[in-house]
Amino acid sequence: MSVQDSPRNGRPRVVIIGGGFAGVAAAQALRGSGAQVLLLDGSNHHCFQPLLYQVATAALAGPDVAWPIRYVMRGRSDVTVLMLAAEGVDPARRVVKTTEGEFPYDFLIVATGAAHSYFGHADWAARAPGLKSVEDATLIRRRLLTAFEQAEATSDDRARARLLTFVIVGGGPTGVELAGAIAELARRTLPPEFHRADPRKARILLLEAGPRILSGFPERLSTYARRALERMGVEVRTGTPVEDIGERMVVAGGDKIDAGAILWAAGVRASPAGSWLGAATGPDGRVAVKPDLTAPGLPEVFVAGDLGLVTNPDGTPVPALAASAKQMGWYAGRAIRRRLAGQAPKKPFRYRDHGSLATIGRRAAIVKLGRLELTGFPGWLFWSVAHVYFLVNLRTRLFVAISWIAAYFTYHRGARIILKSSCEDRGAAPPPH
Amino acid sequence: MSVQDSPRNGRPRVVIIGGGFAGVAAAQALRGSGAQVLLLDGSNHHCFQPLLYQVATAALAGPDVAWPIRYVMRGRSDVTVLMLAAEGVDPARRVVKTTEGEFPYDFLIVATGAAHSYFGHADWAARAPGLKSVEDATLIRRRLLTAFEQAEATSDDRARARLLTFVIVGGGPTGVELAGAIAELARRTLPPEFHRADPRKARILLLEAGPRILSGFPERLSTYARRALERMGVEVRTGTPVEDIGERMVVAGGDKIDAGAILWAAGVRASPAGSWLGAATGPDGRVAVKPDLTAPGLPEVFVAGDLGLVTNPDGTPVPALAASAKQMGWYAGRAIRRRLAGQAPKKPFRYRDHGSLATIGRRAAIVKLGRLELTGFPGWLFWSVAHVYFLVNLRTRLFVAISWIAAYFTYHRGARIILKSSCEDRGAAPPPH
Repeated sequence: MSVQDSPRNGRPRVVIIGGGFAGVAAAQALRGSGAQVLLLDGSNHHCFQPLLYQVATAALAGPDVAWPIRYVMRGRSDVTVLMLAAEGVDPARRVVKTTEGEFPYDFLIVATGAAHSYFGHADWAARAPGLKSVEDATLIRRRLLTAFEQAEATSDDRARARLLTFVIVGGGPTGVELAGAIAELARRTLPPEFHRADPRKARILLLEAGPRILSGFPERLSTYARRALERMGVEVRTGTPVEDIGERMVVAGGDKIDAGAILWAAGVRASPAGSWLGAATGPDGRVAVKPDLTAPGLPEVFVAGDLGLVTNPDGTPVPALAASAKQMGWYAGRAIRRRLAGQAPKKPFRYRDHGSLATIGRRAAIVKLGRLELTGFPGWLFWSVAHVYFLVNLRTRLFVAISWIAAYFTYHRGARIILKSSCEDRGAAPPPH
Repeated sequence: MSVQDSPRNGRPRVVIIGGGFAGVAAAQALRGSGAQVLLLDGSNHHCFQPLLYQVATAALAGPDVAWPIRYVMRGRSDVTVLMLAAEGVDPARRVVKTTEGEFPYDFLIVATGAAHSYFGHADWAARAPGLKSVEDATLIRRRLLTAFEQAEATSDDRARARLLTFVIVGGGPTGVELAGAIAELARRTLPPEFHRADPRKARILLLEAGPRILSGFPERLSTYARRALERMGVEVRTGTPVEDIGERMVVAGGDKIDAGAILWAAGVRASPAGSWLGAATGPDGRVAVKPDLTAPGLPEVFVAGDLGLVTNPDGTPVPALAASAKQMGWYAGRAIRRRLAGQAPKKPFRYRDHGSLATIGRRAAIVKLGRLELTGFPGWLFWSVAHVYFLVNLRTRLFVAISWIAAYFTYHRGARIILKSSCEDRGAAPPPH
């Protein structure tokens, strides 16, 4: 392995692993710090995960919610972005290992996020895909739309009933958003275009192991969300842990449910990067970081985003959200900046809860901003405006706003295409050289 | 195999195989005919192929140029759309065979189009993908963008030079459009965002076996196009047939060229549907149809689009274009309609050449409308307006227009995301029941 030692010119080197919310915020916090920043990610794009469910349910196209990391970093001559997955870290030698050699660092920010966790059932992954990437969303869109198409094509009534059954496992925000969007697809968007199958007859089941959905929200809001989903025709089953997932079949609460598509929105597990740092990790793979977000025993290594486990002053864990990831990334970047400037360390990281939002569907969302709670149309409008605001540029904001306004009046969803997987590429894509 | 016999109610049954330009036009021509129309396609979407190269070069998203066939047919209670690939036709029993059983017809329109042809070199397909579907475009986009990313990530200068070499085989409209768009990507869009590799140093080679590019256009326009490409930094090599294609390597005109991506825009071959009809086909697989577009000996079977070979009154073959496919489909639909109404057959099919267009890049296109020839900015503006006009709905027109206007002023391309192939889905997608 070669060491890729770009000319240092006496400038301190900061490596950031991961171009998600935390990694991008960290790079932004380092603007003007004098450091030479290297941002590594195995993917070329930063993904706005809160809207991925809209890609999965055919309302938006992938490029509406994902932008090249180097585009996000344009104008930053101090930031080099490389599409390389880190393969490890050697904290003793202070290098990050990749297929293109090792990259030395003076400071490191590890922000590799989380992936789905199937609680030890690896075979469930292919049967019930989760939603973390644009690829995942494309796959879920294919599964959903194909089930409707096959229901229309078959002449077997039993097969049709099965194909029109959709099971979503997990009643957190993603599960609720998926269930609501599938209900709208089935009840509003598709019926005028189907002649043999009736999409309105689709069964949509949302399974939650715990006693209520959206358990991160106050009980009143979670009750509102359940009723709103039920009004849209979603069967919400709480206290129903999943026991098994087979090919188009779920066993939950003692029931065997045949399904046309099964989606996973239940568990996540942090990326394995924790082990690179020799750090203790919890059962969910998260690294218990110090109050300044450094890894135990490694003051030059910060952990930000879903990979880092940090607690609020009241002892509760900081939730793994886009907002907390951004704040952690920003904090880590600023902390490095202060150290480079010879300033005293910042105060310990404190998560500021600016509110939580979840949408259920057309004119139905829940918003909690401090003591303010919104539901129904006001909540939905707030949710929509907030999400358009956070998009990367004017063109994307226009596209998403136009899509939503068109969908509001026509129920049309603009990205209803099934893309076959291009497997032939796997054998054909040779290594770089 | 079951026979899927939907209630006939005494209405004649027309089956259309293929939801491309020909199949969709045929269905539109049958509006109000009293026939019960069944449209079969293995894909769920109709693709606007003339803009696919913009998806492949990251200017547009897939859903901007592809729409569900059933959405295109919305409001037509007489048209049933099924996502089923035809597996054969039994002309004696008048049925179309599919995985969901057989579908009987009184009239059949076969419009299954064409695929790439590698002149007998099947192993070239994975090394030099062609551009016929949204999946193809997604794959090409991945290859192109990955080459630039790998050039930035490598520290090996020789590897970098190879990665920044792009070879396009075939100097027809698709090859020219791809070469021009890649040149803009390399020279204008990407340079500000790359620090280690210089995308402006990219070599873009357009290889054409014949004596000039765009041989379907008058020589003056083809000379203009060549000069425009060369001004953009594309090396145009005419009289240069490709001898071999290896992994990231092309042999042409005695030269061995190492490349970061190789694209195929050279040969097409009609789908194998000709053999279903027991019809004689040419070396390119096309069915020599009768002047009324029926298959020889099968007056109830029409062949439309790229699959059908029909000649102009001057003996030249009608070119395989979107416009000719639409006209053939429309003619076939109308001919069936007349027969159902007991009217005399229409006059033989006559292709009306409304003009040909090809774009090279920013402010450079060629247009031939009868005796009118446009180049440069007027040609480009005409090309842009004509293509936006042909899109399916207002929302798509807005999206494409906004993308192009934004790109005109900023050089930004809005769909620069690399999607990994989701191969894991192949094993996991079970048969419908």
